[in-house]
Amino acid sequence: MAMPRPKALPEEEIVSRLSQPQLANWSLEGGKLHRKFEFANFVEAFGFMTQVAIVAEKMDHHPEWSNVYNRVEVDLTTHDAGGLTELDFELASFMNQASD
Amino acid sequence: MAMPRPKALPEEEIVSRLSQPQLANWSLEGGKLHRKFEFANFVEAFGFMTQVAIVAEKMDHHPEWSNVYNRVEVDLTTHDAGGLTELDFELASFMNQASD
Repeated sequence: MAMPRPKALPEEEIVSRLSQPQLANWSLEGGKLHRKFEFANFVEAFGFMTQVAIVAEKMDHHPEWSNVYNRVEVDLTTHDAGGLTELDFELASFMNQASD
Repeated sequence: MAMPRPKALPEEEIVSRLSQPQLANWSLEGGKLHRKFEFANFVEAFGFMTQVAIVAEKMDHHPEWSNVYNRVEVDLTTHDAGGLTELDFELASFMNQASD
């Protein structure tokens, strides 16, 4: 049986979570969690993406992201919930850890 | 000493190269080489990106690209030449091979 998928969080919950330290530098943009990361070079940037890719696949929750050399820009949302869910905050928080 | 970097190709050369079979599905968009790739799933898409990342780093020539689940969208240009160079066509051709 399929795992139950998380539900979209209400806006006050989203705002409250965005103020938590593990969500540092994430903001709400167009209804998605958004953050720009900057690394020393391409290898660092793509190394970060690779760590995130493996975790995202395990979570079955994938980012929308772009990369130009040392920069990675990310948007997170949960399409099948029509909003932001636990999964988005979990992945955002992991990205912050992985980028340290 | 630094390697000499390729020079921007003239437009007729670009148009001619775009018709070559190894450049299938690439087009010129906003002065950049552009292509959308679609894979079976995220693992295939990110596996492709990983192959390309390693080659791009060896070439010291990096793509501008974005990924959403099984889709990868790429733009290639050579910023320090102010246009398209050999490097862009080399990387585009490698991407086509890698995506087969």
